[in-house]
Amino acid sequence: MSPRGYVLEESDLLPLSLGAALLGTGGGGNPYVGMLRARELLRKGASVEILPLEAVHDDDVIGSVGGIGAPVVSVEKIKQGQECLRALRGVEEAMNVRVSALISAEVGGSNSIEPILTAAYAGLPVVDGDGMGRAFPEIQMSTFFIYGLDPSPGAIADDKGNVVVFKKVVDMFWLERFARHIAVDMGAAAGFATAPMKGAYVKRVAVPGTLTQALEIGGTILDARARRHNVVERLLAKTDATLFFTGKVADVRRELRGGFAMGEAMLTGVGDHAGSQARVAIQNENLVLWVDGTPAVMVPDLIMNLELETGEPITTEMLRYGQQLAVIGIPAHDLIKTPEALKIVGPAAFGYPELNFAPLGAPSDVRASAEGC
Amino acid sequence: MSPRGYVLEESDLLPLSLGAALLGTGGGGNPYVGMLRARELLRKGASVEILPLEAVHDDDVIGSVGGIGAPVVSVEKIKQGQECLRALRGVEEAMNVRVSALISAEVGGSNSIEPILTAAYAGLPVVDGDGMGRAFPEIQMSTFFIYGLDPSPGAIADDKGNVVVFKKVVDMFWLERFARHIAVDMGAAAGFATAPMKGAYVKRVAVPGTLTQALEIGGTILDARARRHNVVERLLAKTDATLFFTGKVADVRRELRGGFAMGEAMLTGVGDHAGSQARVAIQNENLVLWVDGTPAVMVPDLIMNLELETGEPITTEMLRYGQQLAVIGIPAHDLIKTPEALKIVGPAAFGYPELNFAPLGAPSDVRASAEGC
Repeated sequence: MSPRGYVLEESDLLPLSLGAALLGTGGGGNPYVGMLRARELLRKGASVEILPLEAVHDDDVIGSVGGIGAPVVSVEKIKQGQECLRALRGVEEAMNVRVSALISAEVGGSNSIEPILTAAYAGLPVVDGDGMGRAFPEIQMSTFFIYGLDPSPGAIADDKGNVVVFKKVVDMFWLERFARHIAVDMGAAAGFATAPMKGAYVKRVAVPGTLTQALEIGGTILDARARRHNVVERLLAKTDATLFFTGKVADVRRELRGGFAMGEAMLTGVGDHAGSQARVAIQNENLVLWVDGTPAVMVPDLIMNLELETGEPITTEMLRYGQQLAVIGIPAHDLIKTPEALKIVGPAAFGYPELNFAPLGAPSDVRASAEGC
Repeated sequence: MSPRGYVLEESDLLPLSLGAALLGTGGGGNPYVGMLRARELLRKGASVEILPLEAVHDDDVIGSVGGIGAPVVSVEKIKQGQECLRALRGVEEAMNVRVSALISAEVGGSNSIEPILTAAYAGLPVVDGDGMGRAFPEIQMSTFFIYGLDPSPGAIADDKGNVVVFKKVVDMFWLERFARHIAVDMGAAAGFATAPMKGAYVKRVAVPGTLTQALEIGGTILDARARRHNVVERLLAKTDATLFFTGKVADVRRELRGGFAMGEAMLTGVGDHAGSQARVAIQNENLVLWVDGTPAVMVPDLIMNLELETGEPITTEMLRYGQQLAVIGIPAHDLIKTPEALKIVGPAAFGYPELNFAPLGAPSDVRASAEGC
């Protein structure tokens, strides 16, 4: 990777979206439609440069855009395409600035691609990194907000031409609340932009290199498939993922609550895990994995269900009875495991106050302090 | 009234709010808290000039502000006071203008007072007129929007410091939808501002003289009470009101639906109306009065319930079993009875497509064409 980054090729889009789907940890929305649209733009001559964080200057102004709404809707209600661009213009006008690059708030799922699309329209580069290193369901759950980004202004735009600017919001939770309800009015699929940030701040708080990480994960999956290797085994060998369970989906419970997909999946062990039971709790994303009643992986660490046979990442809305899955865990980036971060994205923030976060990869005595479910 | 209008006196506030409550036609929110706050400001030296429409210059820029939310909440959740001022600043900044005067969108109920309060804070005059000549439940139901005001931008502000700007909205119905949901988030009581208007436009479409009309109606009620006259009789003599029914509330049905108070009241006749039945349909305001099954008065004409004994205007949330009421009707201003206006505020717009609007005061053969309920 040159110090000035690299230009995204059409052939990068499939592995990027596949890796992003995996980093979505079950949620984050389907990147497929965005990927097709990005491909069209590249074919028409658009060029998007991926900039490493180190190439960002302290005084650069970096915008962050992404889709907001219900992942399941974004597959059925195809975006007009420039929703995020119009939201970006909304915050630029409100702050009287112009951004010189974009960054994703959420590399997991469709929001890996949204800033690339907007960058292609606007002729901007995209910074290689994001605010989560995965997917989370709410706006305030990014390192940008966790480490102090002013939540004002934000902006949301739809396919019809509506643009709403959150000119002054008391805190990031109000921003989430207002934006979520306007997103529902807009048909549960809209473009969103948060306050542009100084380059120095982005370099300090962004999870680095996550677009490239997604590209590499997707490349590993595609390469393994092409060579008829076992995808799950290749992923375990080539990434810091750990296998926690292999099993068959015995039950799935899902309901839409407050605009989110809430629920859980029950798995019955197969192979090495025959005789064991696993349970995965869901709020759009996979939140906690219990194996035989003991918490094995918990948010903000990444929990992913892969189809055992194909290695295809299975998002929460695709879970169904009888699927054979490998459940893997990947440690979250250190920036989303600090005490400040855990207040916003730790187990208690998701309604599991009884779970003390026990990070993957930590010594086992630390992990043992986590209480049962 | 001088050509430059008049300065509002502390002693004007009580009759103004009483008359505004009556013009609220059962809704519009209680002006009492706003009136107390306005009184405090006047006592502290604030001065608010009421400008006749003729005194507005074509190039003046006129702002319109008011409360938005559920009337019943505004009585329990006392406003911080400067919500409308912050919303006004939001639209001023979005359009890069400063207004030179304010006008109410809705003289009926609490929004008669809100622009006066904001004017007292901002040192602005208030134009003697409004966009409804009464109260209506939704934003688009003012002559400002009916005759073509661009719905962008609008702004809404709460007591906590949140300000949301509807920077670009496709039409006035989207503005209503977005603003209604943000108002609910804000606790169902917030300040609202619509796009500032040219003086020439306001002179063409505003219902003229309605602040003074409210003042005079309130004055008539207070004067009659002081002299121990029959208030209802005095109102019938001094205004163009007509008595349609006197009766006792036999039943009230009310429910909150979509943020509105919907329902109906059943009345059993007393006195001259003994043996008759009346029914009043409600969406925040009184919409249609039927007497013995025949529509007698219908929106946009004004329907008002007054306590038979005291002449006190009874708002829809105050209706209760056993009250003795006089139900009067007042013809709406011509500006809200044009074909364009009836599309937005006629019976069909409120869910009564079977009723052809039969205006009060029209020849009886026109009224006879209205169909039964």
